[in-house]
Amino acid sequence: MIELGPNRYGKAAIRLVRVMRGPDGDRVRDLTVAIALEGDFEAAHTDGDNALVIATDTMKNTAYAFAAEHLDGPIEDYGRALAEHFLEAPQVDLATVNVRAHHWAAIDVGGSPARDAFVRGGEGTRVATVAASPGGTTVEAGVEDLIVMKTTRSAFSGFPRDGYTTLPETDDRLMATKVTAIWRYGSPDLDADATFAAVRRTLLEVFADHDSPSVQTSIWIIAKAILERHEEVEAIRMVLPNLHHWLVDLSPFGLVNDREIYTPTTEPHGLIEATVRRGDV
Amino acid sequence: MIELGPNRYGKAAIRLVRVMRGPDGDRVRDLTVAIALEGDFEAAHTDGDNALVIATDTMKNTAYAFAAEHLDGPIEDYGRALAEHFLEAPQVDLATVNVRAHHWAAIDVGGSPARDAFVRGGEGTRVATVAASPGGTTVEAGVEDLIVMKTTRSAFSGFPRDGYTTLPETDDRLMATKVTAIWRYGSPDLDADATFAAVRRTLLEVFADHDSPSVQTSIWIIAKAILERHEEVEAIRMVLPNLHHWLVDLSPFGLVNDREIYTPTTEPHGLIEATVRRGDV
Amino acid sequence: MIELGPNRYGKAAIRLVRVMRGPDGDRVRDLTVAIALEGDFEAAHTDGDNALVIATDTMKNTAYAFAAEHLDGPIEDYGRALAEHFLEAPQVDLATVNVRAHHWAAIDVGGSPARDAFVRGGEGTRVATVAASPGGTTVEAGVEDLIVMKTTRSAFSGFPRDGYTTLPETDDRLMATKVTAIWRYGSPDLDADATFAAVRRTLLEVFADHDSPSVQTSIWIIAKAILERHEEVEAIRMVLPNLHHWLVDLSPFGLVNDREIYTPTTEPHGLIEATVRRGDV
Amino acid sequence: MIELGPNRYGKAAIRLVRVMRGPDGDRVRDLTVAIALEGDFEAAHTDGDNALVIATDTMKNTAYAFAAEHLDGPIEDYGRALAEHFLEAPQVDLATVNVRAHHWAAIDVGGSPARDAFVRGGEGTRVATVAASPGGTTVEAGVEDLIVMKTTRSAFSGFPRDGYTTLPETDDRLMATKVTAIWRYGSPDLDADATFAAVRRTLLEVFADHDSPSVQTSIWIIAKAILERHEEVEAIRMVLPNLHHWLVDLSPFGLVNDREIYTPTTEPHGLIEATVRRGDV
Repeated sequence: MIELGPNRYGKAAIRLVRVMRGPDGDRVRDLTVAIALEGDFEAAHTDGDNALVIATDTMKNTAYAFAAEHLDGPIEDYGRALAEHFLEAPQVDLATVNVRAHHWAAIDVGGSPARDAFVRGGEGTRVATVAASPGGTTVEAGVEDLIVMKTTRSAFSGFPRDGYTTLPETDDRLMATKVTAIWRYGSPDLDADATFAAVRRTLLEVFADHDSPSVQTSIWIIAKAILERHEEVEAIRMVLPNLHHWLVDLSPFGLVNDREIYTPTTEPHGLIEATVRRGDV
Repeated sequence: MIELGPNRYGKAAIRLVRVMRGPDGDRVRDLTVAIALEGDFEAAHTDGDNALVIATDTMKNTAYAFAAEHLDGPIEDYGRALAEHFLEAPQVDLATVNVRAHHWAAIDVGGSPARDAFVRGGEGTRVATVAASPGGTTVEAGVEDLIVMKTTRSAFSGFPRDGYTTLPETDDRLMATKVTAIWRYGSPDLDADATFAAVRRTLLEVFADHDSPSVQTSIWIIAKAILERHEEVEAIRMVLPNLHHWLVDLSPFGLVNDREIYTPTTEPHGLIEATVRRGDV
Repeated sequence: MIELGPNRYGKAAIRLVRVMRGPDGDRVRDLTVAIALEGDFEAAHTDGDNALVIATDTMKNTAYAFAAEHLDGPIEDYGRALAEHFLEAPQVDLATVNVRAHHWAAIDVGGSPARDAFVRGGEGTRVATVAASPGGTTVEAGVEDLIVMKTTRSAFSGFPRDGYTTLPETDDRLMATKVTAIWRYGSPDLDADATFAAVRRTLLEVFADHDSPSVQTSIWIIAKAILERHEEVEAIRMVLPNLHHWLVDLSPFGLVNDREIYTPTTEPHGLIEATVRRGDV
Repeated sequence: MIELGPNRYGKAAIRLVRVMRGPDGDRVRDLTVAIALEGDFEAAHTDGDNALVIATDTMKNTAYAFAAEHLDGPIEDYGRALAEHFLEAPQVDLATVNVRAHHWAAIDVGGSPARDAFVRGGEGTRVATVAASPGGTTVEAGVEDLIVMKTTRSAFSGFPRDGYTTLPETDDRLMATKVTAIWRYGSPDLDADATFAAVRRTLLEVFADHDSPSVQTSIWIIAKAILERHEEVEAIRMVLPNLHHWLVDLSPFGLVNDREIYTPTTEPHGLIEATVRRGDV
């Protein structure tokens, strides 16, 4: 017997910009939105019956319309409005909305922010994922592509050696990584902008402050600090590629290279991921 | 109480080329390999203790050495040798090896294949993932980035309409997608090259042959045919973005556009995914 | 005094697919088009006067309309129709149209090509650039992203050594490159499809056949053969990154690596470019 | 007769990081460097004679060594040292060095910059190109990928209408672009860091301040201001894609969209480029 297993569908890469125009100048929200639905879609697969298939084009239209009506606050609130809207359809068991926010800052003109001109930039991308089901709504927030570096206070030693091991031990390496960190809130009802900013600040500060014996331990130290300082956070998953920076051998050129000149590489890279969470007492 | 949850680590984007030199000409294997381990790595996180942390640099070295010794057959066999090697370490509970194979063909010179010159190309990327645990070894195979198009015999109608629905019904649209299809074998012991080629052929032929009332139904029809024709396959997961091609309105220019001129778009796109599997009888 | 120097403008990344429907099955043309104009546009810059500025949106519309009317033959002919159309505007001195063609092949079903289903792939991208001016129309054709490899018969030795030279000489290295080759025809009136296919075949065959003492010499040998065999071609420019493949040192693992296991890299890469042309007698 | 035309070669995508360690904390320079040489390289092409071919691997080594010795000041000075070094080889007529600088900021920890931890980010990429020839050395500086937006005070009207024109006139559109601006200095001897910062500030301020009747006029206004305010600059070339943001039609959903909800697109895009320079008096 052949049967349908897990399945979902939706619209991805919905791009939209909202300009909020005000007497003190404009504000810009620039988002990439993805919507996915799970539920009673077996007949859509096995019988070619689209009677319950909300068109992904309709999802896109709804994302635009809701941007006009529900995007004056945090992206988490916008995502929640969208997710809970789609959950109203009886065939939907789970509606998931992912929002990525691209950062624009007002251009500085002679020391003051421009009213109507912006420059894109920033460090990493803010993301939020809201999942609505009959059992309730969960909210995840986080950052992607947050590239950071420690120029010292990073080591890697004491690892096992076998016949394929050539890496020397080091007590002082350069550590660079592109952080993906996604944390889950205990409740969807919170000040999502303030909490995001606070968690992000903890992440960066602890990254800067700690001594790292390995990427694994760095994840633990950072994640633990976030859970300790931010009670809204129930769990956090971090994915850290180890973007190796190798010391260049300058000795053939008669030069000493005392932790000064590195060549960064992207292939291959270490890839370290872990979830840290509040356990049951 | 704060605790470590699921975690894994490894080396990704290991690039390697093996040239097999023979009297009738060379053959080329060009791979991107990723290795990930799960197991007893709690102390590595919480105590900064690397005693059990096989260095990801060692994984890379092992991938190179095993390419010399275990890459004369299918990539699945190479992946299995690597995965089962890492499982030998007692702290490892699960070793996963993902291999992506980039296609090179001998250059045609006057009707004959060159002995030692190759051109890269092909349609989609072959992938394999081998996971070894004390309970046994599982093998998945598949294709990624296999871009296909039906110029007719694709419809989408009968879907629900609400206040956000503007999409017209259509009984003849152009359907384009970039197929990711990953199938799991019932046993790791099989002729992986022949089976891969046969499953891929079924995928393409059924894609070409069937009438599509929706992407969902296309997945079902293709996946069901694969399971029916290839008993080695236990389950298959397909992820199909719907790469919309919109008919261009040429009427302002006095031209009729009868399913002839389309503009392809990538943002936004539908995204449809489902697993189809053998159920219990 | 501040003055306007060289300037041009246009529309880039116009995406279009034409499906040619016929009794023996459909054919697909999938293009990315860019249009650029030069001419009397000083007032557009210095006075904000748009009276002569053909809107880039109009260029896009024209590309679509001309696809319906002028795209039943080679892309060079389509590009020429577009370029000569824009040259009709008196303010235009030079109209340049660049066309990139993405390759689709009919899916093979049981040994026959499908009538209405296609798979994208192929080796490299065909390109054409047509430039129309009052002095006449020139046509360039070529390929981009044609990735090729010689597994032997490539050397690099006899180069100068200074205090920064560490590269050993080699009489047998693996050479891989991503060819960009753009050739100019002596006349725009030619069978562009047949000529393109013939030149491309020469390029690949000579790449496969020759012994390479350097990438520079490979360019010369290939380009010279193209000029010798294809009298339609007046000049050819080739840009060849040297995509280094380094032999992996397997000796720490007790293995010999006799030109077998390589690691491909993309950063850094050599970059070699040259034009070869017919000189005045 | 077939002859060699213009040619050049070098090493591209040389990646390097220099950490300058000091008592008040570390500083980071993260560069991508490309080196290209022109000169007496005919025999390298036509005779396979490498006697004058400085290996691109040697160029890479030199870039690393010079990073240790000549990278304590502006990237322009580093590029100049490299370019003038390669010009010392008698076969070299022109040595060009392009440097792209990736921005890292010290992480803020409790209001103070970390001594040894950094986050990558910023707005656009700083670039410099130094060309050394027997006639002298020229220096270009600039920015790439500087993405900016005007939410109002941008218009496009008064353009000609033909049978392919459907674009409505507008006196208030959203204008977004990704600026490439490359300016040439009159002399290589200048305070390159201070001048770069000043020119970049002018670029952003004038972009923010001016009313735009077209992208062409915006280029003129910005470039003219840079030339007027910065006498070190001889000429500036700007390349501005017009990254269209289209107002979404929300009327089917009963909503008014008064310049509020836009959908950004990248395909197709306008592409406007011009050089503005000091003319002869």
